[in-house]
Amino acid sequence: MKNKINFNTSDLEKMEKQTVVHLINSLGGFKSVALAGTSDLQGNTNLSVFSSLFHIGANPPLVGMIFRPSPPERDTLRNILSTGFYTLNHINEQIYRQAHQTSARYDRNVSEFDAACLTEEYKNDFFAPFVKQSNIQLAVEYKEKIDITINNTTLVIGEIVQIFIPGDCLGDDGFVDLEKANTITCSGLDSYHKTVRLDRLSYAKPDREITSLLDR
Amino acid sequence: MKNKINFNTSDLEKMEKQTVVHLINSLGGFKSVALAGTSDLQGNTNLSVFSSLFHIGANPPLVGMIFRPSPPERDTLRNILSTGFYTLNHINEQIYRQAHQTSARYDRNVSEFDAACLTEEYKNDFFAPFVKQSNIQLAVEYKEKIDITINNTTLVIGEIVQIFIPGDCLGDDGFVDLEKANTITCSGLDSYHKTVRLDRLSYAKPDREITSLLDR
Repeated sequence: MKNKINFNTSDLEKMEKQTVVHLINSLGGFKSVALAGTSDLQGNTNLSVFSSLFHIGANPPLVGMIFRPSPPERDTLRNILSTGFYTLNHINEQIYRQAHQTSARYDRNVSEFDAACLTEEYKNDFFAPFVKQSNIQLAVEYKEKIDITINNTTLVIGEIVQIFIPGDCLGDDGFVDLEKANTITCSGLDSYHKTVRLDRLSYAKPDREITSLLDR
Repeated sequence: MKNKINFNTSDLEKMEKQTVVHLINSLGGFKSVALAGTSDLQGNTNLSVFSSLFHIGANPPLVGMIFRPSPPERDTLRNILSTGFYTLNHINEQIYRQAHQTSARYDRNVSEFDAACLTEEYKNDFFAPFVKQSNIQLAVEYKEKIDITINNTTLVIGEIVQIFIPGDCLGDDGFVDLEKANTITCSGLDSYHKTVRLDRLSYAKPDREITSLLDR
């Protein structure tokens, strides 16, 4: 690896805007990426890829997502706020190109499910559509919206109320093997990656060496 | 892959608490993981691994982190609030075990840099210590704290004011090749993964097929 190069705030200000967007989106590291499925009250569905998903807490089980003040995310946000429900569907190697296609700015009357050839799935009386091709599916109930005024974005917090996972991907301790479920990750705006496990490590304590949980 | 199993809210309530923690932490997908370096006003340093890092926006360049209401994250949060500065240091395959070790609950007078055998690096007059072994290093200025009352956590928002990246990992368009920089990702509480790129995809438009940016 070559020597490090250094940029500061004034260097960023001199760069082209789109270059900064790529750069800063990359620096946050590998990201969780999922398809958010919603429907309006008339049953018109919407599907959009999000790479701003993050864990907020386990008890209650809460996830957060950041919404930018621009389309196509507007349909998703409007549907979440008006109906109170959405689904989050993990993306696998078989569907990541279709998932990326949902980021195109389709007209409001077009369902990205159709445009990206992904299949709506309804189950357990949940209002919002799941993505049938997704191996890990979450039903989420809207809880709270927090305006982040510093850059005009919105944090939406939801509670996971239903979980669908392949039976053989769940460990005895509750750990879900995302690699076995073929879940992928992304970096920057447009780069998709599968993963190779390095290790699972024991709970860290000051006076004890870390061990691998896989050797057991 | 086996048939899906299904859990709902009442199933989660019946599970052991630690099982739910593993399960819900896994379901958010692959996560960004980094070491947050801080110092108090007396120069006592602190280092802690965070897997709750996320991109908030590129202009201004903002990153968010979620703090739970428990140690050892308290030292980091206190230092950020009292000094206004912290570093975020990407984790690579060579240091992920040491990074995990920083999650142990050390006494306040112990620096996790020493305990985990990682090296403090000071440069460009930035107040907080970087991790010398990290290939991608960010200097961050504290901007805002938002209390998430629903589960008593805290969102800390900071602006990236300096960037250090290996020269050969930066593309012409601003994209940073995290794989080349050896940055890793994590899942659940304790699982670490390297990545294998699937593709970089073109900007999606409604009337055009996605192409690979790597074929060019």
